[in-house]
Amino acid sequence: MVFFMSLNPRILAGFLFVSLVTVIEAEPLVGFDDETSKTQRRLEEQFDQNLSPVSQDEWLAEFSARPHHAGSSANRQVAARIEALFSAWGFDTSIVEYDILLPTPKTRALELVAPVHYTASLSEDSLPEDPSTAVRKDLLAPYNAFSKDGDVEGELVFINYGRPEDHRLLKRYGISLKGKIAIAKYGKSWRGIKPKLAAENGAIGTIIYSDPADDGYGAGDVYPVGPFKHASGVQRGSVMDMPTYPGDVLTPGRGATPGARRLKISDAPTITQIPVLPISYRDALPLLQAMGGATVPDEWVGGLPITYHLGPGPARVHLKLEFNWDRITIYNVVARLEGEKYPDEWVIRGNHYDGWNHGAADPLSGMVALLDEARSVARLASNGSRPARTIVYAAWDAEEPGLIGSTEWAEDNAKILKERAVAYLNTDGNSRGFLNIGGSHTLEKFFNQVSADVDDPQTGATLKARARAAITLFGSPEARKNIENRTDLRLSPLGSGSDYTPFLQHLGIASANLSFSGEGTGGSYHTLYDTYEHYTRFRDPKLAYGVALARVAGRATLRLANAPILPFEFASFVDNVALYIDEIVKLADTMRTQTSLANQQINEGLYKLALDPTKTLNAPDIEKEVPHFNFAPLQNSLLALQKAIAAAAPQPLKELNSDARRELNRLLYTSERRLTLEAGLTGRSWYKHHIYAPGFYTGYGVKTIPGVREAIETRDFDAVDKQIVIAAKVLEAMTIQVGKIASITGSPGRVD
Amino acid sequence: MVFFMSLNPRILAGFLFVSLVTVIEAEPLVGFDDETSKTQRRLEEQFDQNLSPVSQDEWLAEFSARPHHAGSSANRQVAARIEALFSAWGFDTSIVEYDILLPTPKTRALELVAPVHYTASLSEDSLPEDPSTAVRKDLLAPYNAFSKDGDVEGELVFINYGRPEDHRLLKRYGISLKGKIAIAKYGKSWRGIKPKLAAENGAIGTIIYSDPADDGYGAGDVYPVGPFKHASGVQRGSVMDMPTYPGDVLTPGRGATPGARRLKISDAPTITQIPVLPISYRDALPLLQAMGGATVPDEWVGGLPITYHLGPGPARVHLKLEFNWDRITIYNVVARLEGEKYPDEWVIRGNHYDGWNHGAADPLSGMVALLDEARSVARLASNGSRPARTIVYAAWDAEEPGLIGSTEWAEDNAKILKERAVAYLNTDGNSRGFLNIGGSHTLEKFFNQVSADVDDPQTGATLKARARAAITLFGSPEARKNIENRTDLRLSPLGSGSDYTPFLQHLGIASANLSFSGEGTGGSYHTLYDTYEHYTRFRDPKLAYGVALARVAGRATLRLANAPILPFEFASFVDNVALYIDEIVKLADTMRTQTSLANQQINEGLYKLALDPTKTLNAPDIEKEVPHFNFAPLQNSLLALQKAIAAAAPQPLKELNSDARRELNRLLYTSERRLTLEAGLTGRSWYKHHIYAPGFYTGYGVKTIPGVREAIETRDFDAVDKQIVIAAKVLEAMTIQVGKIASITGSPGRVD
Repeated sequence: MVFFMSLNPRILAGFLFVSLVTVIEAEPLVGFDDETSKTQRRLEEQFDQNLSPVSQDEWLAEFSARPHHAGSSANRQVAARIEALFSAWGFDTSIVEYDILLPTPKTRALELVAPVHYTASLSEDSLPEDPSTAVRKDLLAPYNAFSKDGDVEGELVFINYGRPEDHRLLKRYGISLKGKIAIAKYGKSWRGIKPKLAAENGAIGTIIYSDPADDGYGAGDVYPVGPFKHASGVQRGSVMDMPTYPGDVLTPGRGATPGARRLKISDAPTITQIPVLPISYRDALPLLQAMGGATVPDEWVGGLPITYHLGPGPARVHLKLEFNWDRITIYNVVARLEGEKYPDEWVIRGNHYDGWNHGAADPLSGMVALLDEARSVARLASNGSRPARTIVYAAWDAEEPGLIGSTEWAEDNAKILKERAVAYLNTDGNSRGFLNIGGSHTLEKFFNQVSADVDDPQTGATLKARARAAITLFGSPEARKNIENRTDLRLSPLGSGSDYTPFLQHLGIASANLSFSGEGTGGSYHTLYDTYEHYTRFRDPKLAYGVALARVAGRATLRLANAPILPFEFASFVDNVALYIDEIVKLADTMRTQTSLANQQINEGLYKLALDPTKTLNAPDIEKEVPHFNFAPLQNSLLALQKAIAAAAPQPLKELNSDARRELNRLLYTSERRLTLEAGLTGRSWYKHHIYAPGFYTGYGVKTIPGVREAIETRDFDAVDKQIVIAAKVLEAMTIQVGKIASITGSPGRVD
Repeated sequence: MVFFMSLNPRILAGFLFVSLVTVIEAEPLVGFDDETSKTQRRLEEQFDQNLSPVSQDEWLAEFSARPHHAGSSANRQVAARIEALFSAWGFDTSIVEYDILLPTPKTRALELVAPVHYTASLSEDSLPEDPSTAVRKDLLAPYNAFSKDGDVEGELVFINYGRPEDHRLLKRYGISLKGKIAIAKYGKSWRGIKPKLAAENGAIGTIIYSDPADDGYGAGDVYPVGPFKHASGVQRGSVMDMPTYPGDVLTPGRGATPGARRLKISDAPTITQIPVLPISYRDALPLLQAMGGATVPDEWVGGLPITYHLGPGPARVHLKLEFNWDRITIYNVVARLEGEKYPDEWVIRGNHYDGWNHGAADPLSGMVALLDEARSVARLASNGSRPARTIVYAAWDAEEPGLIGSTEWAEDNAKILKERAVAYLNTDGNSRGFLNIGGSHTLEKFFNQVSADVDDPQTGATLKARARAAITLFGSPEARKNIENRTDLRLSPLGSGSDYTPFLQHLGIASANLSFSGEGTGGSYHTLYDTYEHYTRFRDPKLAYGVALARVAGRATLRLANAPILPFEFASFVDNVALYIDEIVKLADTMRTQTSLANQQINEGLYKLALDPTKTLNAPDIEKEVPHFNFAPLQNSLLALQKAIAAAAPQPLKELNSDARRELNRLLYTSERRLTLEAGLTGRSWYKHHIYAPGFYTGYGVKTIPGVREAIETRDFDAVDKQIVIAAKVLEAMTIQVGKIASITGSPGRVD
């Protein structure tokens, strides 16, 4: 390709370390010089012109016409169609199969057996207003995948959202879950946490329902009048213990190829310990209404027209669940467009295609944007603008049951991916609203530029301006504070919840996840009502944000593929890490003060004085006092990294020859690998990344510097200093990497 | 009386100005010396022994057997019984009559006329579990007293709690109330504010209902299973514009004696501008369900199983209200026990007896505690311990429709009360829980001692310790901060809502209001369900807190009656005033910053970027920027007062002769008068007090230093500096009073 032959590395490298540069239209793109920027921008204009909301809409209608979960014939047909499209557009396409365990429901029975009788319908209504909801072939009945089988009977205990703090409060009421069946609300934590913690606390089963205050008429008009959850709607979803490892439960850390070594099902640690079933709020009402015991705390009250009680009982339920524990074949569609200049540097761009149901929003809205993008990229290539690096488009299967398609592929190709993967860009369900970008902070500056280069379909402002406005006006105090005194958006650190996890957290590949949200809210998620009709009426009519997503993700993909010098930048990275370290130090300080005060108040008998003696709520237990920790190793490694980055600040650079440039790019894109350690996180070695991980007790929610943070949060105080030393190691490794980069690009101390 | 003949004023006066003295059992009582303290404490022991929960329970059962609103024959009989009791106990008793306007319902009709038809029942169910609820003779049907008559039809608009901020938000949705009927939730502001503001915004009628999230099943089990509001329960209540003036609407500022000059009804400014009707949540459901328009903001969502909409319409209601605009006679029972030593110094102790219905909690639970107390005081007197000062017990009539009995009596006797009234102590409905004391801060130290001398019936701790524990653990951040680093409880400043208002805010008589609450919550307030059965089952079984209330109020009454030197103290007063001034300065600063930021955000177009263009919510309007104010006059007068108080700090005192002591006491008890100005508050001259007033737009909620605070809050910025000067005047007057006191008790500068 002509457009980056004449680049001047002196200028290019300058971008790598500059923070707080105001990005204006006229400025060169990160990783490009003036001239190649212009070429790239012209290319992007052509790219935009190829995009078609009409095509996206047609694909969405076609693929969401039928429920298509992993393992179903409908899903296999969607894969085939996607493969055919990629092939037709000129991609080198293949279907990569894995052989995974996927339980599907055989028996689902839930009865209230006392004090009155009620049999839960466990089914969702077809609605005349939405013909898709009558199409039920291949529809999986509402269930939680990777619940174990079970036949249990017990009194109900209401556990609110089933988070650690909810269990702590239940203990203060003197309520034990031992031998009981927990009923939890969906929301506030990832669903898999609810049975996991309930089981840890002795429950023999868990029921999860969507409370109408959060996800039903309390949130807005329900389907089909409005987008919110129909009374019969049930959120399906996986309860596999993904914070331990995602992917096939039988083949942790290795691809689920036919001959792979497999665990016995009974040994698979990521299957739940107790049976779990999701239900609708229509089915939850009689159960909750039959409960007695103490009235729930104010902040636990939901939106059903009853007084909520904690139990236990007198409501008693019988829950029977049996699953088909079948091995099935899954089909990842992988489409490759070989890079002209650096074929062994891969930009990977993925979205899953399997749904729980019709899956219009989740995942097809993202999938059709990816297809639109891929078609346009392919057209540019056929018109002579082949990318410099190889682009790999992936349509993942079996994301819903546990990120299985992407994880097996990442595990299966770990070695080559670690060598060659420049970055992984993910999308999943889309909607209308504001651009969200989560990802590796070495790409923060890069994505700020991308988001400033695409306009919002509704307001005409840049996506960046609109996202900043939303945070400024409606963000949490923390979020607002975090963008004060800077012109950039911060990338959210990535936890889990979609297919970037194996790339980022298992392999250390810089990743990002892109979506729009905030204005197409509703309650269709993982229900029968996630249909084409619902999506195009309420979430993104005419796929305007589908096109916007293709523009953003396509620009990111093309720039990563074409940048003469890869657009990784370290000042933003270290700026965010400094924030996280600061948070953790404050966390310890706050916990120390609060624990000490709380213990003092308990010891002084204030709770005995202030709590209603006629009620069952007791004082909290005395907690272990929080010691001071030695944060110095982490703080010193941060300082060293900050200095290394400052020392590599833009300086006159020597010209780079082709090998040096190649080495520079290799150092840039492998920098994320330095944030991983082979030993992984303590207790969950699959997770190698020591800056970003999903929380062990939040599930999807991110924990930054997870080893240290979770040791403090779980009050495992003896482990904290050791975790600090471990976390410091990855910053030290990054410092060395930055030093190597500076040795190529030059540094202030150098005389060239 | 023997017990204060030998007092030593040198020691006594020392108590007047000491702050932060730890009150321990052995310490003398405020206003007493060692010896007289011992005598007084012995007297209080005897006082306690006379108290009887059994009698309180019997009176409660008797008086609450029938609904007894002002003007009813049942109420007249309660008055007669109370009078008979006082007489029998040896009080000099009289019934003081006034002739007041009291509207009662004649026609109440509410129909939903579109898009479907529903006729509101407007009636409360009798419950087999509570026989009292079948006793309906003399029961006033649910209504809001001092609503004007009206026959209106219009579309509904949902106005949340009907507060100023709710109306501001409605404007952002482009919704006008002009020609509409507002439907508001009870709560968060005093009910009279809702129609007042709705009318100011153009509404032609207001419906008020109790939302089950606040006051129904969302709060807890409903009656008769639990104490919370039954689906048919309706909160009655006055909507008279009491923040303008309370009492008879036709005779502002003067007693409603038969010959008094009266306004025409059509000229009475405190009758509402539009018709108002309270309804149950059972009646509200079909109305709200029929509404359309934008979905309400999240924080406006209530507990009914529907999606709440703002309207206007399509729900359209017809509201017809007619009242009997009758003049009725009301009957205050006034029982006097003449003081032995200072008969012209009056300690006044009141509680109303009229109810909206059976009135077990409101007001009889307080009334029976007052009776128990009065009987015990009378017994002490008959046994030779007559109080030094005169004690006046009052059982007020017609408090419910607008503090009418107390206000008319206070207005009628204004001159003599200003001369003689030492203090007014009020109680009203009682419950189980924590002691609340609101009142004049010159009595803060006094009440801290009283509350440390009475034990909580449930925990055995002192009431003070229990109240402090509750604030420490569960108080608002502000409340917690306010008791940090001090061992005392702060008295809450008094707004309005019971009979202390005319004494404190019209006449400048130091006042206090005492009650227990926090553990006997429920939804019986002003409904058919405020019965003996409800009260003794859920609020205060066996009247244990009735006895505690009698102990507290009785001690306060007896100490005020017997203290050789009246227990007013100024350090606490000035400490609280300093807090209020600080709050107001911060309020202006915060408003200035927020206004400036909000205006900037509007001008920068952030709302246009961040708000959903498909929704009707718009950016707020640009607000007038907040100028800087000259707080110096207020701050300087505070400084002068602080210096005067410090200068009067405990010093050796010369012996006081009887005249000097009398003059000292007069200066002490008339000190509160200095906080009033004859001109009253701007725009509502009936309210003379410039430190405490009910908020013009909060109704019951207090506004301290109201002239200044409300000028800022209502953005009447031009008025602020003038109000600061006015407020400074009352502090200057107080400084002079303190100087006069010091000239008697001595001061550091004096050589005796």
